[in-house]
Amino acid sequence: MNASDASSSPLSVDWVGGLGGHIRLIDQTRLPTDLVFLDCRDVETLWEAIHSLRVRGAPAIGVAAAMGAALAAGRCEADDVPAILQTVLDATRRLRTSRPTAVNLFWALDRMDLVARSSIHGTADDLRRRLLAEAIAIRNEDARMCKAIGEYGAELIEKGSGVLTHCNAGALATADHGTALSVLFRAHEQGRLAVAFVDETRPLLQGSRLTAWELRRRGIPTVLLCDNMAGSLMRSGKVQSVVVGADRIAANGDFANKIGTYGAAVLARAHDIPFYVAAPASTFDFALASGEEIPIEFRDPREVTHGMGRQTAPDDVEVYNPAFDVTPAEFVAAFVTDRGVVRPPYGENLPRALRGGHA
Amino acid sequence: MNASDASSSPLSVDWVGGLGGHIRLIDQTRLPTDLVFLDCRDVETLWEAIHSLRVRGAPAIGVAAAMGAALAAGRCEADDVPAILQTVLDATRRLRTSRPTAVNLFWALDRMDLVARSSIHGTADDLRRRLLAEAIAIRNEDARMCKAIGEYGAELIEKGSGVLTHCNAGALATADHGTALSVLFRAHEQGRLAVAFVDETRPLLQGSRLTAWELRRRGIPTVLLCDNMAGSLMRSGKVQSVVVGADRIAANGDFANKIGTYGAAVLARAHDIPFYVAAPASTFDFALASGEEIPIEFRDPREVTHGMGRQTAPDDVEVYNPAFDVTPAEFVAAFVTDRGVVRPPYGENLPRALRGGHA
Repeated sequence: MNASDASSSPLSVDWVGGLGGHIRLIDQTRLPTDLVFLDCRDVETLWEAIHSLRVRGAPAIGVAAAMGAALAAGRCEADDVPAILQTVLDATRRLRTSRPTAVNLFWALDRMDLVARSSIHGTADDLRRRLLAEAIAIRNEDARMCKAIGEYGAELIEKGSGVLTHCNAGALATADHGTALSVLFRAHEQGRLAVAFVDETRPLLQGSRLTAWELRRRGIPTVLLCDNMAGSLMRSGKVQSVVVGADRIAANGDFANKIGTYGAAVLARAHDIPFYVAAPASTFDFALASGEEIPIEFRDPREVTHGMGRQTAPDDVEVYNPAFDVTPAEFVAAFVTDRGVVRPPYGENLPRALRGGHA
Repeated sequence: MNASDASSSPLSVDWVGGLGGHIRLIDQTRLPTDLVFLDCRDVETLWEAIHSLRVRGAPAIGVAAAMGAALAAGRCEADDVPAILQTVLDATRRLRTSRPTAVNLFWALDRMDLVARSSIHGTADDLRRRLLAEAIAIRNEDARMCKAIGEYGAELIEKGSGVLTHCNAGALATADHGTALSVLFRAHEQGRLAVAFVDETRPLLQGSRLTAWELRRRGIPTVLLCDNMAGSLMRSGKVQSVVVGADRIAANGDFANKIGTYGAAVLARAHDIPFYVAAPASTFDFALASGEEIPIEFRDPREVTHGMGRQTAPDDVEVYNPAFDVTPAEFVAAFVTDRGVVRPPYGENLPRALRGGHA
């Protein structure tokens, strides 16, 4: 693969053709060794792709599901509007069962249902057109969000920096450039980023499989390390900042992200390295006062004991395998959002920046 | 495998039979799924076993190599002493090439050469007997060292503790109970240890493959985690102390150990958890003033990119893969040695305890 075709990097989720078109996904389970596209021409194929993590990352799942509703309408052979509407509602109900926890999935499908129901008095083509337009709008909103985060975040990266990231908050997880990786991509374009350091991110290796792949495709100097090597790397003076994404952020700035993020934050502070969190306004959950209220999912022990298809631990060992950890706000130098950079005190500044009001 | 056969746990390196006997190793490359023994009846089989890490851990390698000299003498068909001596010296010269960096290998073979050369005026049987006795003595010294470390260290573990360890400093790495694991084993016997937490220890997974296996064989409650989960675990309050081994310790108490040890030490301090280093007097290198003088080995990138036999990173990515890191003495609550527990100030107390003199 030629690293210089950076600008033409394929989208994680794309729509091919017009009203009767279909969805094209990158099959992320085949990365990093094979770049394989999956064409979804029916809802069941899409359902399986989401369920099996062929497409992953909350924003990307939302876009894919929204396009699924447009797909159902476009492929429906009926010509009367009530029949098409019923097909669409059946499709969105089905897609809601593809993953239980991704909030963007339900949010995107709610938007599609609303558009479908409100198009009941138009023509069949109007219905199909409005659904496709809404799916494209959801994608475009996500792309704008990614771009804004990249612009704001790049200014925090000093020229010649080594920047460490964890897990995958990149183009593969979103409809465009990602969140944390959008910052790295823009900083690279501006000549600020000297080298990207990537934690491999056990147990599922999103760092080595996905993030390293995205960075190398864009020709960015990239160094991969095991998660437990980050301390040694920071101590060597090669890391000037850390940028990660987030899965949910509480009102006080505590945030949940992929397991290992908290450890990286503690190490960053021990070495006086600024630690930045890149996330859109939609990731902030002002209903939660602090990180203690964020529920943490525990996952299958076999992700740890049979990590890469081979058994690497004794049969009868117990396993601690949380998917996420919570990092207290005190470790965060700034949040990079699509509405600008937010600095402490977060209890005051986050609501002002992101809710448009005062704390 | 029955966890209750704890007391009859097999030795990593053993001598089977008398003067004409042979070496029996646990093939550590087959763990944790298969407990397979390898009988070495000639020096080439032993050389291959050391070279391929079937036996690993500096003390265990030293014992195996020493037994290799006894093996060469016992299997030599000649009856005249000079011919046997030549066979032994050829064997020890050959065994020195099996691994380039393990200090104990050279130290043990030096001892065997000395015994062989000083036996030139006796009978052939005297020579064979003295070599086997020296090899057994090296093993017994190591076993006594392990036992002493376990006794001293167990007193540091409070009743009901969760104790985290990293990599494998266990029976498999030594001639008997290990260093860090000797502390855990003894604390378990005394009813102090509630649960052992084991970092899997990427890239080579000595924690999940070897340490978890040793702990479970002895029936000790064991929880395995990925290295990047240690921060979350400590924050949850389940870890009361951390005990690790060491590869080399400088005069000021800075020490080198398996990569990831430094990160665990930083996390332990951030959570006010005491961090202990268990090592025999022979691991202290008073010729080095500080950890900055300890050379760090960088290893094959494929350990990270093709960790478990499958490619999990893009082809063209650079890799940071140091085998060890250096933890400054300030992070160490105490050193547990075979001569007792040593507390700060280390510059003063380490030489006094371990060199028998004053700083």
